[in-house]
Amino acid sequence: MNLDCPVPHHERARLLLGHGAGGRLTAELLEKLVLPALDSPVGSPLEDAALLPSQPDLVVSTDSFVVSPLSFPGGDIGSLAVHGTVNDLAMRGALPLALSLAVIAEEGLPLDDLRAALTSVGEAARAVPVPIVTGDTKVVGRGAADRLFLNSTGIGRRIRGLTPSAARACPGDAILLSGPVGLHGTAVLSLREDLGFEADIASDTRPLHRLVAALAPCGSGVHTLRDPTRGGIAAALNEIARDAAISVEVDEAVVPVPEPVAAACDLLGLDPLTVANEGCFLAFVAPELADHALAALHTLPEGSSAVRIGEAGPGPAGRVGLRTLVGARRILDMPLGEQLPRIC
Amino acid sequence: MNLDCPVPHHERARLLLGHGAGGRLTAELLEKLVLPALDSPVGSPLEDAALLPSQPDLVVSTDSFVVSPLSFPGGDIGSLAVHGTVNDLAMRGALPLALSLAVIAEEGLPLDDLRAALTSVGEAARAVPVPIVTGDTKVVGRGAADRLFLNSTGIGRRIRGLTPSAARACPGDAILLSGPVGLHGTAVLSLREDLGFEADIASDTRPLHRLVAALAPCGSGVHTLRDPTRGGIAAALNEIARDAAISVEVDEAVVPVPEPVAAACDLLGLDPLTVANEGCFLAFVAPELADHALAALHTLPEGSSAVRIGEAGPGPAGRVGLRTLVGARRILDMPLGEQLPRIC
Repeated sequence: MNLDCPVPHHERARLLLGHGAGGRLTAELLEKLVLPALDSPVGSPLEDAALLPSQPDLVVSTDSFVVSPLSFPGGDIGSLAVHGTVNDLAMRGALPLALSLAVIAEEGLPLDDLRAALTSVGEAARAVPVPIVTGDTKVVGRGAADRLFLNSTGIGRRIRGLTPSAARACPGDAILLSGPVGLHGTAVLSLREDLGFEADIASDTRPLHRLVAALAPCGSGVHTLRDPTRGGIAAALNEIARDAAISVEVDEAVVPVPEPVAAACDLLGLDPLTVANEGCFLAFVAPELADHALAALHTLPEGSSAVRIGEAGPGPAGRVGLRTLVGARRILDMPLGEQLPRIC
Repeated sequence: MNLDCPVPHHERARLLLGHGAGGRLTAELLEKLVLPALDSPVGSPLEDAALLPSQPDLVVSTDSFVVSPLSFPGGDIGSLAVHGTVNDLAMRGALPLALSLAVIAEEGLPLDDLRAALTSVGEAARAVPVPIVTGDTKVVGRGAADRLFLNSTGIGRRIRGLTPSAARACPGDAILLSGPVGLHGTAVLSLREDLGFEADIASDTRPLHRLVAALAPCGSGVHTLRDPTRGGIAAALNEIARDAAISVEVDEAVVPVPEPVAAACDLLGLDPLTVANEGCFLAFVAPELADHALAALHTLPEGSSAVRIGEAGPGPAGRVGLRTLVGARRILDMPLGEQLPRIC
């Protein structure tokens, strides 16, 4: 789809679900429409969490949550809204100082459902802990929104010595993965599509800031952190390889894919490497610190299954290669991004 | 409507449009459902802009925008998203440091419409100027949202010496209004209801931070600032009277209501004092500084018609009285909040 090609009015280009799915279409929408329209420099893309001007230790991140259904095994839209934003801050090496919460709700939503979602926000925020300092509530007419959308924006303060950024990944870096992949996406899809995996699969939604704090002793040797949400680790690795102009080589046999996730993905025709996660992250670290970083991740329950899954190379820039289970090599493409709408 | 009364499941209480309209129902939803669910202290309500913990000069504010139609005389959802958040920061005496922008869009939205809205965001942000440092894009299926919703969250730094807060309004304060009322709400409604006032009425949407900065010489004598958006000056005055436990007396004859706004309100059966504004604010200032503050507002075009509309009294706490055009006195109630959905 060519976003910048003039078309006759009656054939106007329209937004696709895939434009919001975190893959290639999302990247194209950002580069060809969003950033030029905002007149932001293309090539220095909007990061999930950005440094705050004139406040060198503060970062800010925003995320909207439109997940359907509103609750699912392991979590709900409320906990997701807290964890998602806390984790985006953590990926820039920051601990959360404060969150905002904005509600867009559909007229007729049972107040019990709203109360349940907000109670979950409150519980998740206290568990972090992070205060919710400001909010907003909008109600739209029946049919103008699907039940409930949340936005949370977070402000965080960087942990001293940690300055991770997508652009800092280097050839030679060890690539660590803090936990198993595919749980969140398959938990939501299983419920939505009535696949019956709900007893075996729960979302991995959780805050990751403590796990990032555990990496603080590795300091500036922690080059890049990224939580592989929409588009899974396939999208995250491709973004890092592109932004840092490096290549990436991953060993498929080492990537932890829980058995029920593999079964659900088989049934759905999905690659678990493209499925959304909400409770693990990728870390690109200097090779001499890899063992030290892994050991630090293993000290916390949420990092107990952290593994080294591959390494960064000098190029070709942007290429993500996979050593497959059968010993072959293939390119792990950026997912196009149509398969999993409203996963978060 | 009793939000905390248990009801049989089949008669579950449901969200009403009025719960989002900024009036009494919104206050009730916040106090009885949102704040208890979040486990935030009731009575210290979520302010539109809050102080950031451990950063005494920084404030943060969030707002979602669901206005329908997406563009209207004088502005559109994009400019509104920038101005609304910049103004919420300004009402706490802060200049904007950075904005985030989160997009929720409906599948099938013409890309031209998205581009137009985001171009407007970019233009409005550059005019302030404030950088948009981070963003998020979600796409939901057809029918799951009405075209386009935006959220902008702002971080601002307080102007030295300005510490306005709703609770600081005092008996004896002069109440200033920076510009005419009713333009934004009637501009949007006229277009939506096809009333034909579009040639005569344009939204007043504009950034108010410069006008607030002009008040800096009045320092801590500027007790309270509030931009009367949803619910108009009726809601804003009632909120301040409640939060500061004061009474308020306003002279209706002095409140500037443009003639076309009065005509549109007559036709719609609306009180212009309850109609949303996006480009003016109320200031409660120490009486000895009132003339000085008014003169400061008059130095800028957006404050050229600023007037003194009344004064604060010692009580009864929360009462807003109006000296009417015919010389009678009446209570100006908090609007219930059903009349103007999706005005911002």
